[in-house]
Amino acid sequence: MFEITLVQVFDFIGTLAFAISGIRLASAKHFDLFGAYVVGVTTAIGGGTMRDVLLGLSPFWMSNSFYLICSAIALVWVIIFRKLLVRQNNTWFLFDTIGLALFTVTGVEKTITAGFPFWTAIIMGTLTGAGGGVLRDVFINEEPLIFRKEIYALACVVGGIAYFICARCGIGTVTSGIVCGIVVFLMRILAVKYRLHLPTLKGEE
Amino acid sequence: MFEITLVQVFDFIGTLAFAISGIRLASAKHFDLFGAYVVGVTTAIGGGTMRDVLLGLSPFWMSNSFYLICSAIALVWVIIFRKLLVRQNNTWFLFDTIGLALFTVTGVEKTITAGFPFWTAIIMGTLTGAGGGVLRDVFINEEPLIFRKEIYALACVVGGIAYFICARCGIGTVTSGIVCGIVVFLMRILAVKYRLHLPTLKGEE
Amino acid sequence: MFEITLVQVFDFIGTLAFAISGIRLASAKHFDLFGAYVVGVTTAIGGGTMRDVLLGLSPFWMSNSFYLICSAIALVWVIIFRKLLVRQNNTWFLFDTIGLALFTVTGVEKTITAGFPFWTAIIMGTLTGAGGGVLRDVFINEEPLIFRKEIYALACVVGGIAYFICARCGIGTVTSGIVCGIVVFLMRILAVKYRLHLPTLKGEE
Repeated sequence: MFEITLVQVFDFIGTLAFAISGIRLASAKHFDLFGAYVVGVTTAIGGGTMRDVLLGLSPFWMSNSFYLICSAIALVWVIIFRKLLVRQNNTWFLFDTIGLALFTVTGVEKTITAGFPFWTAIIMGTLTGAGGGVLRDVFINEEPLIFRKEIYALACVVGGIAYFICARCGIGTVTSGIVCGIVVFLMRILAVKYRLHLPTLKGEE
Repeated sequence: MFEITLVQVFDFIGTLAFAISGIRLASAKHFDLFGAYVVGVTTAIGGGTMRDVLLGLSPFWMSNSFYLICSAIALVWVIIFRKLLVRQNNTWFLFDTIGLALFTVTGVEKTITAGFPFWTAIIMGTLTGAGGGVLRDVFINEEPLIFRKEIYALACVVGGIAYFICARCGIGTVTSGIVCGIVVFLMRILAVKYRLHLPTLKGEE
Repeated sequence: MFEITLVQVFDFIGTLAFAISGIRLASAKHFDLFGAYVVGVTTAIGGGTMRDVLLGLSPFWMSNSFYLICSAIALVWVIIFRKLLVRQNNTWFLFDTIGLALFTVTGVEKTITAGFPFWTAIIMGTLTGAGGGVLRDVFINEEPLIFRKEIYALACVVGGIAYFICARCGIGTVTSGIVCGIVVFLMRILAVKYRLHLPTLKGEE
């Protein structure tokens, strides 16, 4: 009757983690509860919304209240467990990374289904995974974090490339999606563990 | 022959008030006339444009020059009455609130007509009313004001809920729209009069 | 067999110049290589993407990898010739202006083809030419430069008006497009040469 799949569980904890990251940063900027919720929702659904608009589809959250409810749960969570959030940082980092991996796979698959070439799918996967965080940083008036800190969006790109190597080798879409997700997940975990950065372009003379 | 409805009058003064708020803030940042006009237009039509893009419709202003002309009138007004604008603040606050109320109703109704569920309509009503102000603040490189000051976007949410309570009680769309608009209007007026704020999430330990 | 038109050459050097302007500004903000590339791509394709989304079309770069490859070439160029870029400033200014002119013409023509009125086409031409620079400045968290410095976006508006004067006089679309491009190009060159500014609205009392 009512079956919960692993993908739905990952979708829930990823959305939760993304929304919480937005709500925490908005709170640090003294946004009110409504503002914090809006920033949380934007972080959670912003990437997928941009993807759907570019693909010419109706945004995924407009006919499914799941994502807005998730973000509301995230807001309540931050209100209740505010003082414990720092101690939960490792858990939220893990959940955030699961979300990044799942959202990338979703973005890649939706774009292929819409009939676009593989490099567009990689871009859309990256946009789905990392776009919400960029919108969040624009709203709180900061330079987007993902453009400066440890490898983040690049993990999505590499995951997308892994998907297509699999697909070209004749591996099925389910397996290709799983490989893509695992690559994103591992690359992000390793980047943080070993503080892997991309080089910065030095200023001009 | 040529009849002007009350809705058109409200649309005019709302658009005017929104554009003027954008132009004034852009001027304070030393934008030139063109920049001030762009920020004014964005404040006036930005929310409705995002709504139309998300609904998959052609943006309302692209086939109706009314809104760009309104914004041009707003620019001329600011140039001529610059020194009197502060004294006109109460009037502009009133006009801005009329615009907020009308735009919310428009957003709610357009979304229902497009066949989306009621909570999506509430979001679209809020986006139509408050989205332009968020874009304005992103352009002038400030944290969006509506996320921090008196209840603003929340008035749209409550108005949207009022619309659906009416609709569920079998009240017609015209009356539901009027009730929605009045709720937004009154809630915003009361919020400013009594300085009603939403609480802010305290920073983490 | 494989013919390269003048329009394609202009498109290449315009895209290159736009991407380089984004990459240089991102580098000055200490974005990493990936962030610099994203800002470069956004500057190059952002205006046209917003145009296509508003027109309800599939964004032009999603089925043509040319623009992303151009931006990659721009990134490599900045890495290799970093110390020489300042000396190349005049060349890049010229290329940027060619891009501005071509993108304006493209925007105007695409909008007419889509059946919108002429003033919408002027707006879309301006958005195509100047919109990418606005997105770039939002990403690097600066007030958009085009709202404050020498005449830039206004050159697109005047070019668009020139297009329609030509079209109304019965001149063919190819010639109208060429006139439009030349007007944008000359107006921008003259604005920089003679430091033509639009007036700024003085702050209020």
